[in-house]
Amino acid sequence: MGTSMQEAAEALKSVLRTLKGRKAAVLGHMRPDGDCIGSQVALCRMLTAAGVDAVCVNRDRVPPNLSAYARGVTFIRGSDYGENDRLAVAVDCADASRIGTELLARFPEGLLGNVDHHASNPGYAVHNAVVKDAAATCHVLAACAEMIGLEVDAATAKALHLGILTDTGRFSYSSVSPELLELTARLLRKGADPAEANFRVFEQESRGKLALTQRFLASLRFHDGGRICSGEIRQADYAATGTTKEDKEGLVEFPRSVEGVEVAVLLEEGADGIRGSLRGRDPRLRLDQLAGKLNGGGHMLAAGFNMLGCSLDRDRDRIIGQVIEHVRERAGK
Amino acid sequence: MGTSMQEAAEALKSVLRTLKGRKAAVLGHMRPDGDCIGSQVALCRMLTAAGVDAVCVNRDRVPPNLSAYARGVTFIRGSDYGENDRLAVAVDCADASRIGTELLARFPEGLLGNVDHHASNPGYAVHNAVVKDAAATCHVLAACAEMIGLEVDAATAKALHLGILTDTGRFSYSSVSPELLELTARLLRKGADPAEANFRVFEQESRGKLALTQRFLASLRFHDGGRICSGEIRQADYAATGTTKEDKEGLVEFPRSVEGVEVAVLLEEGADGIRGSLRGRDPRLRLDQLAGKLNGGGHMLAAGFNMLGCSLDRDRDRIIGQVIEHVRERAGK
Repeated sequence: MGTSMQEAAEALKSVLRTLKGRKAAVLGHMRPDGDCIGSQVALCRMLTAAGVDAVCVNRDRVPPNLSAYARGVTFIRGSDYGENDRLAVAVDCADASRIGTELLARFPEGLLGNVDHHASNPGYAVHNAVVKDAAATCHVLAACAEMIGLEVDAATAKALHLGILTDTGRFSYSSVSPELLELTARLLRKGADPAEANFRVFEQESRGKLALTQRFLASLRFHDGGRICSGEIRQADYAATGTTKEDKEGLVEFPRSVEGVEVAVLLEEGADGIRGSLRGRDPRLRLDQLAGKLNGGGHMLAAGFNMLGCSLDRDRDRIIGQVIEHVRERAGK
Repeated sequence: MGTSMQEAAEALKSVLRTLKGRKAAVLGHMRPDGDCIGSQVALCRMLTAAGVDAVCVNRDRVPPNLSAYARGVTFIRGSDYGENDRLAVAVDCADASRIGTELLARFPEGLLGNVDHHASNPGYAVHNAVVKDAAATCHVLAACAEMIGLEVDAATAKALHLGILTDTGRFSYSSVSPELLELTARLLRKGADPAEANFRVFEQESRGKLALTQRFLASLRFHDGGRICSGEIRQADYAATGTTKEDKEGLVEFPRSVEGVEVAVLLEEGADGIRGSLRGRDPRLRLDQLAGKLNGGGHMLAAGFNMLGCSLDRDRDRIIGQVIEHVRERAGK
């Protein structure tokens, strides 16, 4: 589904109206990223400023490098969440299942709101503010906040900027419009700080992350004449470098940035199977559809999948084979 | 020296007035980067649109990944430049020597114009448009073009955007102001394309560059409790990976982005000595002054030096020792 920014603002207004005198839980997705945390913090702060008792609830923890943004906002881990009187608003979740099934089950009456920018979002809530051509969920929230007149203080502006920054690859994707830059300029005037944000998000790598990066680069292989490049991470890599799966963030950009590569693949072998990330540069390759064939989903240029019970040694070639086949099909060859 | 943007526009106007009926050579610095090429292309196109016969002259070649920006503009290598009737305008050159001494000697009457944003620029031309707090030389040119009413077509807008993009580290430095984002938005409306620019500049790495990156990461060492991190590249690394010194671009960002690192150092051993790059995050450390002690110069957060006749095996420890000493002094410890 998709709505215009104006319709999204109306949907958000309806959410606010329903929340009058009620309590809210702002839900993010599993393994939250900058746009997820940024949207949660921003919406939670806007709701609080509007007089609504609001908290953020996530299956997973706030990544340490983003914790500064969560300051002043209550974040509760799904496993610790025991209330039953909050109405749920999901942000940055392409599908309700992205919240995590156990956490989602705490809201048997369903979700009140759904603020997102993923094209595949089916509109799973009562009020859906899903703007498909927005650059980030934080883009949707920032634009709607201006239309509705919600309060955006410095901390909220920083959170909104965080999501825009991370979901545009530092203002490098085709989703970056003049209007987005002007909106971002207004967030800077309200207190967002590009240098601070970049420092927090991109410039506090651990030495372990550097070592993991080295290992990942060494694992890169090229397929189908170089149009596909895959790299892998095993549990042993995390152990040897003192890193965790959060540290794989951004690694897929290395193969994606090699000349001639149309699809970059990161395969991560965990205890329960293989988790894959797909990145491309041509929307016609429809990586969301490729991910769909591999038990996943996402955007046309960035998607992911999860293959339970698979192992790299046994299933890598089969997975890469499916990637090759899909890319050839979509490229019309 | 430094001028306000208004004074810079006046200086540029004077350059244009003098160039009426004359011919211009737009000079960039040695080993040109995105802001240098972007400024040269933009100024050359603006001059041409204003009826001035203009070419770009550089000691070194246009980096291959930026050649698309140079299309439609005449770039001449310094060694091939044999004319004597062009008036010279330097862009993005902190000092006239950055043009290269041989090329500079072709203009014995000195330089007519100097468009730049380096704090250390002494104002070496007749008309100096040097805005110290501008994010890029392209920022100066874009802002002045609006004030003066110079023509900015799509190709010029793309060139201006290129310089702003690269000299702000993809909109991540403290030089990124709301006004700069709004100016960039207007460049997008005129035809600049963030996705295309990022693709050209950052996403066409060669496989050799990946291999060089791996080697560089393996060379990283931490000094003085981790506040300094250095890495090195030898001629053999280029040979083994099929890369050239242009490929070292950006590598220093890896050590700069490690938690706790205050100064990142890249040491490159060439046939004639050691070339060093310094990157930091605290302007108080004054890397321009540190580079000055090592036969170099630059910005407070990004500087470089050139130590002829030095070798890594013999002189590395001494150089790092000077870095440590300078950082301790500046940090007041």
